[in-house]
Amino acid sequence: MIFSSFILSPVIADVAPPRLQLMPAPASLRLGDGRLVITQTFSVGIAGYKEVRLERAARRFVQDLSRRTGLPISLQLSEPATATLVIHTERASRPVQELDEDESYTLEVTSSGANLAAPNPLGVLRGLQTFLQLVHVTPEGFTAAAVRIEDKPRFPWRGLMIDVGRHFMPLDVLKRNLDGMEAVKINVFHWHLSDNQGFRIESKKFPKLHELGSDGLYYTQEEARDLIEYARDRGIRVVPEFDIPGHTTAWFAGYPELASAPGPYEIERRWGVFEPEMDPTKEETYRFLDKFIGEMAEIFPDAYFHIGGDEVKGKQWDANPKIREFMREREFKTHRDLQEYFNAHIEKILTKHHKHMVGWDEILSPGLPKDIVIQSWRGQKSLAEAAKQGYRGLLSFGYYLDLMHPAFEHYGVDPLSDEAGLLSPEEQRSILGGEACMWTEYVSPENIDSRIWPRTAVVAERLWSPQDLQDVDAMYERVEAIRRELDELGLSHRTSETRMLRRMAGTDDIAPLAVLANVVEPLKEYVREEEAKKAGIELSSDDALNRLVDAVPPESETARRFGRSVNQFLAGDSRGGAEEAEIRAQLAAWRDNDARLAPLLQRSYLLKELAPLSQKLAALGDAGLQALDYRDKGERAPAEWTALEMSFIEEAKKPQSDLLLIIVPSVQRLVESVSAANTP
Amino acid sequence: MIFSSFILSPVIADVAPPRLQLMPAPASLRLGDGRLVITQTFSVGIAGYKEVRLERAARRFVQDLSRRTGLPISLQLSEPATATLVIHTERASRPVQELDEDESYTLEVTSSGANLAAPNPLGVLRGLQTFLQLVHVTPEGFTAAAVRIEDKPRFPWRGLMIDVGRHFMPLDVLKRNLDGMEAVKINVFHWHLSDNQGFRIESKKFPKLHELGSDGLYYTQEEARDLIEYARDRGIRVVPEFDIPGHTTAWFAGYPELASAPGPYEIERRWGVFEPEMDPTKEETYRFLDKFIGEMAEIFPDAYFHIGGDEVKGKQWDANPKIREFMREREFKTHRDLQEYFNAHIEKILTKHHKHMVGWDEILSPGLPKDIVIQSWRGQKSLAEAAKQGYRGLLSFGYYLDLMHPAFEHYGVDPLSDEAGLLSPEEQRSILGGEACMWTEYVSPENIDSRIWPRTAVVAERLWSPQDLQDVDAMYERVEAIRRELDELGLSHRTSETRMLRRMAGTDDIAPLAVLANVVEPLKEYVREEEAKKAGIELSSDDALNRLVDAVPPESETARRFGRSVNQFLAGDSRGGAEEAEIRAQLAAWRDNDARLAPLLQRSYLLKELAPLSQKLAALGDAGLQALDYRDKGERAPAEWTALEMSFIEEAKKPQSDLLLIIVPSVQRLVESVSAANTP
Repeated sequence: MIFSSFILSPVIADVAPPRLQLMPAPASLRLGDGRLVITQTFSVGIAGYKEVRLERAARRFVQDLSRRTGLPISLQLSEPATATLVIHTERASRPVQELDEDESYTLEVTSSGANLAAPNPLGVLRGLQTFLQLVHVTPEGFTAAAVRIEDKPRFPWRGLMIDVGRHFMPLDVLKRNLDGMEAVKINVFHWHLSDNQGFRIESKKFPKLHELGSDGLYYTQEEARDLIEYARDRGIRVVPEFDIPGHTTAWFAGYPELASAPGPYEIERRWGVFEPEMDPTKEETYRFLDKFIGEMAEIFPDAYFHIGGDEVKGKQWDANPKIREFMREREFKTHRDLQEYFNAHIEKILTKHHKHMVGWDEILSPGLPKDIVIQSWRGQKSLAEAAKQGYRGLLSFGYYLDLMHPAFEHYGVDPLSDEAGLLSPEEQRSILGGEACMWTEYVSPENIDSRIWPRTAVVAERLWSPQDLQDVDAMYERVEAIRRELDELGLSHRTSETRMLRRMAGTDDIAPLAVLANVVEPLKEYVREEEAKKAGIELSSDDALNRLVDAVPPESETARRFGRSVNQFLAGDSRGGAEEAEIRAQLAAWRDNDARLAPLLQRSYLLKELAPLSQKLAALGDAGLQALDYRDKGERAPAEWTALEMSFIEEAKKPQSDLLLIIVPSVQRLVESVSAANTP
Repeated sequence: MIFSSFILSPVIADVAPPRLQLMPAPASLRLGDGRLVITQTFSVGIAGYKEVRLERAARRFVQDLSRRTGLPISLQLSEPATATLVIHTERASRPVQELDEDESYTLEVTSSGANLAAPNPLGVLRGLQTFLQLVHVTPEGFTAAAVRIEDKPRFPWRGLMIDVGRHFMPLDVLKRNLDGMEAVKINVFHWHLSDNQGFRIESKKFPKLHELGSDGLYYTQEEARDLIEYARDRGIRVVPEFDIPGHTTAWFAGYPELASAPGPYEIERRWGVFEPEMDPTKEETYRFLDKFIGEMAEIFPDAYFHIGGDEVKGKQWDANPKIREFMREREFKTHRDLQEYFNAHIEKILTKHHKHMVGWDEILSPGLPKDIVIQSWRGQKSLAEAAKQGYRGLLSFGYYLDLMHPAFEHYGVDPLSDEAGLLSPEEQRSILGGEACMWTEYVSPENIDSRIWPRTAVVAERLWSPQDLQDVDAMYERVEAIRRELDELGLSHRTSETRMLRRMAGTDDIAPLAVLANVVEPLKEYVREEEAKKAGIELSSDDALNRLVDAVPPESETARRFGRSVNQFLAGDSRGGAEEAEIRAQLAAWRDNDARLAPLLQRSYLLKELAPLSQKLAALGDAGLQALDYRDKGERAPAEWTALEMSFIEEAKKPQSDLLLIIVPSVQRLVESVSAANTP
């Protein structure tokens, strides 16, 4: 009956089926009939267990819903009997959010109202975000599709790490990112608070840590507590990281006596791995760390405490006769043995302060108790090894946002794949989840949002949603929706690029610059460093991050769409000529862009470097058009032409101004399709 | 010598002369030789008098400069001897900023550094903003042109009023607007805190004012103090307004005994002028207001206190026998007499609390002492009358931002023009300046920035800069620069529109919607109300402000540029055919847009209403192109065609969906240019 009325109604017939662009996708969803229309009279009521956090969450939800719809909805909560959305919770969450806490919820939307039920407020927080994502504009108003969703996460630890050591991120930057994390159900903020380049939290016991280690850029303890509270409101644990015994130059600026070489020390300005290391042989080091960790343990209520532990080279240790002597006495053969000794001490200190230790791959050693957690930047193999030894693990390999990989690559990385996929179910349970990692050598408060989002949403989905969810095209459709939602929340992942392009150009008329910006991506992996090294440039925290490489997002939407068009076209899906017409229009726009862009490039020192890229883009447009001409005439291209174009294409693949012209492979496919080796 | 080296150097030859896009334009400026290059090592030093506010201002300046350039500049202040920019102040500002305080400064920039000197920190604040505006990207880096600027304001009172009564504006909205005000040297924030639709500040003495008068949307006293501090840091006075005895329904929700009719009262939801009025005949009214004003006087340190006083209709007074009797006894003939009686009492209360009274035109009466200030929404005539009677005045007539007039109209309004221009110099001195006014019936936190900016910058320039600065084209060029600067500061006047269009459309693909949005403007004056009345709709604060009329800026940049092109073209300036080609391209884009936009409009209830507008835009594009065809053929258009098009054009001028197709007059000029009455 309902189906036929859909067919019969001319208005409804035009309407697409309800779009469910939920990210992360829920564990189970059943579509109901009809839709709930959201109006100004929308209201929320809380039944069952009540607490202040829940009320704040409900009000925040109403604010978000108002922003999503533009409707003025009252912030006052209603009685459950009359509310549009009724929240029902059974009991309180734990006083400090715990790793194994239930985040499940059931959300039922009908044309007359909605019910959200969860065992505790955590599940409510998750369900409210799902409800928000259900709301779309339609011919009938803003509506939420009628659905029944039963949802819970696949992994209990779904994190985002932000490195505030290399570039300090003001509190408001972190807060808006916590808003983003909540939107995609991330439940751990891993706060990398110290590194060679900065020590970023106030210590009252050792004030020279932040006074001499931060250039004045640090969080007060009050600010840290405020952020933890903010995160708790959003169902997010905060795990602090103090990276020891390496990555510690900033500590030594104030306390050189902790180091393995005499000093004095200054905050490190360069990027890289450096020699300064804590002296693990001195009792004073542990006394200091005991007091310091005790102080931090009072600020950070979470049961987990990250001690880093990565990239200890042992150079200072080798150079220090006392340390060498110490190692000899104890028959330590490698730096690793000494670091084990150090970690064992730290582990005891953490236990004393009721914390479980978390560290990077390198801390793994059989001597440590089984409650520690290994965060792997090396891969599933490390995780699998740890699991076999009875250790719990987190995957971050494959989730490094600073390496500028496209979303689909992160989407393809699963904590339980590869070696970890071969573990027993029991062993697999010790793999807790994973974390996206935002290292910040080339990341500033201005562009960090565009480095974190939307790719972190894709990692979040991998960690929350069923493992068999693998459709990349559908994922990118949901990414479009989440990008818009994050923009509504005030994140700058979309707006910062335009702002930066205008600044570079010194004008609002940036259309031709945007054409170039839309088809380039920052260099991947560590090639930016390698290029600098080749050029004899030492990169550092003094560098301005105001060039095109810093402005463009890690993944080009234009290039992705163009690549898909080219593939469909070459696969024979011509859409009655429309596909080719679109490809031609795009290629022509690139070909003609340099003439418009070149004068602009001369007006700014930040744009001058882009002239070769702009010229290459023009040539690529030309090459693609010529290839299409050959196709249309049913000819193969002369071998000479193909050779010339292919050699140019190889040239165009090379890094230029720390950027890649990311459309090159698509143009290459067009050129190859008419080469003598292929039948056009 | 210097000139010839400019000519000889091929690099420099390409470079335009330094662009000085200062807004407000300074009183005097002399261009020097060369430019100061801004690098990471830029530093600020303070010589002479020092205070914490000055140091905060210097650090804020460095942050702004960092944002403007993308350069990581240290926040630490330097010794004056080594600083790039040396600030020199002689003495402290007054503890509470005063009306007649010196805001002058001298700024000298050379290729090796800069000096900013001012008698007190206020002038420093002004000069720092000027320096920021000097910084532009060039082929040599970010630079500030070498200049010597001696600057001071034309008027001592340059304000912006924001009405938070009708729509509450959260604190962060006000703060970012204070940032914008500082950027354009506005020195008064007039905070319209109460009206029929809301009472917006916490009163501890009369808590039912905010509890029952605000829907929970009010500022705590702590927040108000925080905002005042924030404003003081930026050299901005905060003048509170509590509008009495009319515009007071929200007061009566909690305290009906203040009213002239028994009540009960609820917060007013509709817009308009309403009957509830305070009872001026009761001693209790004055006891209440004495206590209340005393409480507010402690929060607001400014010497001026605004009591509104506008639009008192006296209907409740007439209906109340006691009040009629009271008037008879005292031989009051009009409501105006009774309001005078009321104002005289209020004036004494204000004096007791050390405040000068400010009010709208209606409060002017000869009985009041000469220290009061009249804010005129009626015109220069009111101001002139007040001045002749020895009262001081402020102009707001012509500066009402909610009336949606284009910038050039505000620019043409001068406090010392018309009747005020005929005053003696002595009398003219009593005209203190003016205020832009943002009434918020149709203004939400989401779109307020686009209603205030950039037009308020134009009013700010009128009030700061020399009166003979009248070049409208040059003004619009500076407006482009200030729009970019305000965007850097985090104001949403540019970003909110895109966000709202995406929400309306439910997709990111809003290009055809933007084409329409770019050529419409919200209805002017009070036509939105009139249209609603015609349609039998009662507008209220429950209405959503999420339609196209709420998203588009008050002034269409596209229409302005198109209009200029058409004028130049019709004046015979063809630019070798380029002008016509551009006009044709624009007209064709409009003609073809409806086919792309129509399907989108069907998908959203917020867009459906736009179908007729989109069709009219297509027809206008077509009409313009046909007119050009006649011109190109050297023909006059047939009378029938002209009649048809002109009748359509008249139709297209009518309000539609609360919008105006603002390009109609330009197309009309094209059509008329080929009509039989004209020689093509």
